[in-house]
Amino acid sequence: MVQKMSVNQKITKFTNGQLSETEDDIVTEYPLTIFVNDQEFATMVCTPTHFDEMVIGFLASEGVIRFQDEISSLNIDEDAGYAHVKLHSKMTTSQEYYSKRFIGSCCGKSRQFYFHNDARTAKTATTKLTISPTQCIKLMENMQKSSVVFQETGGVHNAALCSPDGIIVSRTDIGRHNALDKLFGYSILNNVSVREKIIVFSGRISSEVLVKAAKIGVGIVLSKSAPTDLAIKLADDLNITAVGFIRGSSFNIYSHPERIKL
Amino acid sequence: MVQKMSVNQKITKFTNGQLSETEDDIVTEYPLTIFVNDQEFATMVCTPTHFDEMVIGFLASEGVIRFQDEISSLNIDEDAGYAHVKLHSKMTTSQEYYSKRFIGSCCGKSRQFYFHNDARTAKTATTKLTISPTQCIKLMENMQKSSVVFQETGGVHNAALCSPDGIIVSRTDIGRHNALDKLFGYSILNNVSVREKIIVFSGRISSEVLVKAAKIGVGIVLSKSAPTDLAIKLADDLNITAVGFIRGSSFNIYSHPERIKL
Repeated sequence: MVQKMSVNQKITKFTNGQLSETEDDIVTEYPLTIFVNDQEFATMVCTPTHFDEMVIGFLASEGVIRFQDEISSLNIDEDAGYAHVKLHSKMTTSQEYYSKRFIGSCCGKSRQFYFHNDARTAKTATTKLTISPTQCIKLMENMQKSSVVFQETGGVHNAALCSPDGIIVSRTDIGRHNALDKLFGYSILNNVSVREKIIVFSGRISSEVLVKAAKIGVGIVLSKSAPTDLAIKLADDLNITAVGFIRGSSFNIYSHPERIKL
Repeated sequence: MVQKMSVNQKITKFTNGQLSETEDDIVTEYPLTIFVNDQEFATMVCTPTHFDEMVIGFLASEGVIRFQDEISSLNIDEDAGYAHVKLHSKMTTSQEYYSKRFIGSCCGKSRQFYFHNDARTAKTATTKLTISPTQCIKLMENMQKSSVVFQETGGVHNAALCSPDGIIVSRTDIGRHNALDKLFGYSILNNVSVREKIIVFSGRISSEVLVKAAKIGVGIVLSKSAPTDLAIKLADDLNITAVGFIRGSSFNIYSHPERIKL
């Protein structure tokens, strides 16, 4: 059975002072449990698209793999909600680090996050790429236009991997991190050189989003929303240009403004 | 040092075709590591307010405590970012369940979530409370008006514990779950009878938000945003009225519409 990104359901609508029965598209929330070398590794609650990209991007983000050829097989069982990943070798990092990492509530992870896996996988940007304000605004506009699910349900985040001139690939997910993992997986599966690329994102730039962008390896992050102070500090350190509140014809640059050129 | 909810920072603004230096308020992201009986339990990345409520609400939500008197001491070290909780007894649930739970990416938790701790702590609503459409709209309006941080920075979620006639307490956090944990902690610390209360929330109703509301013990959840299909299924099962897209003078009811009465 192919999973759907949204489902049509009966709802009760209140409008013009009246209650009435109608139908609406509801965004899907799908749990996918990942097994690595037959060991349960994580369950991601996601929008059910591009499972292979998401799993590979997630494992790369965790520091479990770096390249596609480290994976000997990847099988997705959509009905059961399982992804089975076999690696050519054993996992090199102690499982202890992973469990440490996962301690934290939604949009909040362990402080160890910044010390263990992240220190190994987040890269300081070295790109000489620059981008014009008009290109920033255009990329955000194009990404938002391209998301049909958001227009239908209002319940998802969009993320796109771009060059200054246009979108290379755009992905959608109810989980902000999943959308970024899908981009990461896409870039690994398709050997995209990410160094001269940009991430355009519909959601807030939290510290985790910023770290994820650093892991993917881009030097510019464009967001429709606000950054946090911790994300700005990390962007400063990791040499990443963080741009937020891209709305209409204006935006704010929070770090390394030298890459935005009139 | 008292932590701040937002900090003023220099930014570069692009507007009217020009780049200029200015200042803006940036929302704070603060990591708080919780130790229970001297054992590291979790790190929450949060907006630094109402630490005691957040820690108590989080521990209640995890099933570690149910009542305030199970805690012998709670000390917050704001400079170090530590919360030290001592319980009168040992933790009754195996730590294994907690680590299981935490496996998952942002806004996505383990499937075990629904089987272990949640099965113990999420309650099926039994309230006979009803609310009028006008009250739904008014509560959302009042909560959003009361959030100064959101108006300044655009980067936080708001949650309020309400009666049909007004807000009892309103809390803000960059993490949607933290905002709800603060309400949970408030209700425990102040012996609020939650059964006849309502949760009003600025963010999406994901399965985790719905489960958190069930753990707190309310029967009605009002949101400005969209629900997911999994959240609606859980709301159906747990006898919770889920209302979304409260904007202007209209909204949608996704489950148990019998509690919304003209």
